[in-house]
Amino acid sequence: MSEGRRELTGPVEVIGTGLLGTSVALACRRAGIEVLLTDVSADHVRTASALGAGRPRADGDRPQLVVVAVPPDHLGASIAAALDAGDAVVTDVGSVKTGPLAAVHDHPRVRRYVGGHPMAGSERSGPLAATADLFEGRPWAIAAHPDADPDAVGLVEELVGLCAGVVVRLSPEDHDRAVARTSHVPHLLASLAAGRLADAPADHLRLSGQGVRDVTRVAAGSPQLYGQIVAANAAAVLGLLGEVRGELDALIGAIAAADGDALAAVLQQGVAGTLAIPGKHGGPVRPTASVFVSVPDEPGVLARLFLAAGEAEVNIEDVRIDHDLGRQVGLVELIVDESRADHLLASLESRGWLTHR
Amino acid sequence: MSEGRRELTGPVEVIGTGLLGTSVALACRRAGIEVLLTDVSADHVRTASALGAGRPRADGDRPQLVVVAVPPDHLGASIAAALDAGDAVVTDVGSVKTGPLAAVHDHPRVRRYVGGHPMAGSERSGPLAATADLFEGRPWAIAAHPDADPDAVGLVEELVGLCAGVVVRLSPEDHDRAVARTSHVPHLLASLAAGRLADAPADHLRLSGQGVRDVTRVAAGSPQLYGQIVAANAAAVLGLLGEVRGELDALIGAIAAADGDALAAVLQQGVAGTLAIPGKHGGPVRPTASVFVSVPDEPGVLARLFLAAGEAEVNIEDVRIDHDLGRQVGLVELIVDESRADHLLASLESRGWLTHR
Repeated sequence: MSEGRRELTGPVEVIGTGLLGTSVALACRRAGIEVLLTDVSADHVRTASALGAGRPRADGDRPQLVVVAVPPDHLGASIAAALDAGDAVVTDVGSVKTGPLAAVHDHPRVRRYVGGHPMAGSERSGPLAATADLFEGRPWAIAAHPDADPDAVGLVEELVGLCAGVVVRLSPEDHDRAVARTSHVPHLLASLAAGRLADAPADHLRLSGQGVRDVTRVAAGSPQLYGQIVAANAAAVLGLLGEVRGELDALIGAIAAADGDALAAVLQQGVAGTLAIPGKHGGPVRPTASVFVSVPDEPGVLARLFLAAGEAEVNIEDVRIDHDLGRQVGLVELIVDESRADHLLASLESRGWLTHR
Repeated sequence: MSEGRRELTGPVEVIGTGLLGTSVALACRRAGIEVLLTDVSADHVRTASALGAGRPRADGDRPQLVVVAVPPDHLGASIAAALDAGDAVVTDVGSVKTGPLAAVHDHPRVRRYVGGHPMAGSERSGPLAATADLFEGRPWAIAAHPDADPDAVGLVEELVGLCAGVVVRLSPEDHDRAVARTSHVPHLLASLAAGRLADAPADHLRLSGQGVRDVTRVAAGSPQLYGQIVAANAAAVLGLLGEVRGELDALIGAIAAADGDALAAVLQQGVAGTLAIPGKHGGPVRPTASVFVSVPDEPGVLARLFLAAGEAEVNIEDVRIDHDLGRQVGLVELIVDESRADHLLASLESRGWLTHR
């Protein structure tokens, strides 16, 4: 959208000045838009104001757009209150979209509500963790209901652009099914895998490698927050968990019966799933290869390694650092385009790095 | 063990010249030990020999130590044949330990068998992927049975040291329970999570973030190989999958009944599990914090970033590169000791990097 046709002129009211709300506010301020801040915590509003995220909302303020960024359990009521309060367009940043919509479905101003969900976050929370860059390059679902006012949708999409997010349009129902599949159910299965480690003997856990760390990482998230999110998406999550239960029973049956073909079928379905995840930059998955480098565990060593990779003109797609056991040595896995792996390997070796594939 | 008391003088026979076997052979050759190579594939033996991993075994050779590195389904028979063939100490590198032991439990020379399992591997296979450094700093389980000859155990542990692995002593039963918990069940749950993605609409998968990529990464592994491993550890895996099924039922019940406390309890157990995984270098988990940096997706940029972090004298504990959608910009997460995060953030910002926490 060109500057000349810019519709989002403000003020923007942000209700809930936590990580997401304050980050949206900072991005609006960066674009020169006036921001009004509202929170049940006066402390949060003061902090967000001090960070330059805007000023407390005052009586008589008439926002053009309201962004509701409150915890999942309060979304519906806050969106309804925002619609009650005036004729502003209202959006939210909640992780689930059908529940809040149902709460305002019969509201006379429902056409001005357009649900949103930026796929961004942090393990930190609160306004101090906020940044105008939080959404840069991240998908931001726009889950407009069929009766939403097209102008309202356009205004919310303009907000996403201003935050440097990438609009992904889905119906509220599709959004919730999508996040059940790509976020909620993977999280719950990670929690089940991690839960088996909680009471394990310590010497058993010494065999933990990178695989179990990757599988269980998300399970470290807040049970309170995540519990609210899952509860709010109960229908979609239960549908998929029912499938998971059926597959788990099939898996248990296959292992108990020593049925190698049935076991391989479950594993093969998993392989197909990993290949279905879109690649970096939303394109098809490009084949990658790993180059491993053993490095001493000290400041500066990764700098030298990446400098060497850069000199070889190889683009690093991903990096993993293996946490080894009992030694002050790290194993760094550089994931690169398959066609560049041999060149990188030779290049690093010629510079004296201890590499292998 | 001092050089003066070195007992492992060779020759070492390696049966199965794939990734693991050839890597063990290369580590032995690096230490100046004669290596004899055996494989059903003459091609593999030729390749491994050409890599400097040793020479084909000939009639009349009398190895001091035999390392069995064949696929899971052939382990028991190969170990038995190696015990039959002479008075060498025999070890293996299989992922499961009670099954192979049962296959030789009544063998007259069973005292000379000491099972082993290095926690190392690669997504590549075959001798060309091998390297003497594969085991450096990795845990290597030694699963000696109660009747094993202490001298035989010492010899195998000397092999681990020569490969720069870290010995973790466990009974065969404990080993198998440990890998069921830390490897096999997490892998199977990752497969179940990934399996749900296989038939998902493509626009749903556009909401995939780093979480689902981490949870499902291991599920990309070979169904054939992994199926053999899981089948060989059926008892321990089934025990844990029974627990998982019980917890899954509890989870489904909690969500269906909107019982927030019961849902939070399952999630809290997962949090406890993630905290139980030992930290880097086998010590307690140190608190870490993340610093995020937005970077253009081009060769050399990570080099400059890591150089800047090195100049700030901050040790990077882990790195993640977020795969974003539709933009040629990457988000790099630097995980550092919590006490160093603010310093790193300020230091990077002063050098012009676009950072946030």
